Amino acid sequence: MIKPNFAKGDGLVPVIVQDIETKEVLMLAYMNQQAWEETLRTGKATYWSRSRNSLWLKGETSGHVQIVKDIFIDCDDDTILLSVQQLGEAACHTGYKSCFYRKVKDGKCVVVGQKIFDPKEVYK
Amino acid sequence: MIKPNFAKGDGLVPVIVQDIETKEVLMLAYMNQQAWEETLRTGKATYWSRSRNSLWLKGETSGHVQIVKDIFIDCDDDTILLSVQQLGEAACHTGYKSCFYRKVKDGKCVVVGQKIFDPKEVYK
Repeated sequence: MIKPNFAKGDGLVPVIVQDIETKEVLMLAYMNQQAWEETLRTGKATYWSRSRNSLWLKGETSGHVQIVKDIFIDCDDDTILLSVQQLGEAACHTGYKSCFYRKVKDGKCVVVGQKIFDPKEVYK
Repeated sequence: MIKPNFAKGDGLVPVIVQDIETKEVLMLAYMNQQAWEETLRTGKATYWSRSRNSLWLKGETSGHVQIVKDIFIDCDDDTILLSVQQLGEAACHTGYKSCFYRKVKDGKCVVVGQKIFDPKEVYK
C-alpha cells in the first residue's frame, strides 16, 4: 500500500488541489496520515488544519466539498496532487474560486480571480 | 512591496509550479526570501534547496530553466503559485515532464507521466 512520506515534514505533507475540469490550481493544504486515510476511504478531500490542529473535511461548513477524482504523488513521495471536482465552484474561504486569486505585478497584488460567493452569507 | 509570509513556515514558503500552456502541475518547491527576490530580479524560478541547504536556480545543471510568466499568491500569503514556461519540456530530475508522474490507484502507484529525457544523459 503506497503511503506518502509523512515523517519528512514532521507528520504533514503538502497537498496541491487542482480542478479536474479547468486545471486551475485551487489551493494548497496539508495532510497527516489520518487525513490521507480518510480521503482514500471517503473519496472526499480531508486535510489537517494546522490552525485548528484538527482533521478538516473540506467543505464541512460551506458545503463546498471536494470530490477526489485522481491522486498523484511526486517523485520524492513528499507531496500529493489531488484532482478534484469542486462542489459549489469555489475553494477559497474568501469566496473566490481559487485561493490564488491575486497576481503579483510590479511588486503589488492585483485581484484577478473570480468571486463566487459572499463569505458572510456562507459562514454564518 | 508584496512579500510572502516567510516567518510562518520557518523562513520557507511552498511554491507550486504550473506549466503556463498545458496547465499541468510540474512540481512543488520552496522559497526563502532570497530565492523570492532572486526570482523577481531574474525572471527565472529560483528555489531554496532543503536537501542541499542552498539557493537553487532550477535548471542550472540540466538547462531546464523555468521562465516565470506569472506569480500568484494565496489568500494567507503563505503559498506561491508560479506559472512558467518550462525549458527542455521536463521539470522532474527523473526525466518526467512533471514530478507528479505517478497516479495512486487501488493503493498502488501507476506511472502515467510522460518521460522526456534520460537522467543519466543529462546529469553527468
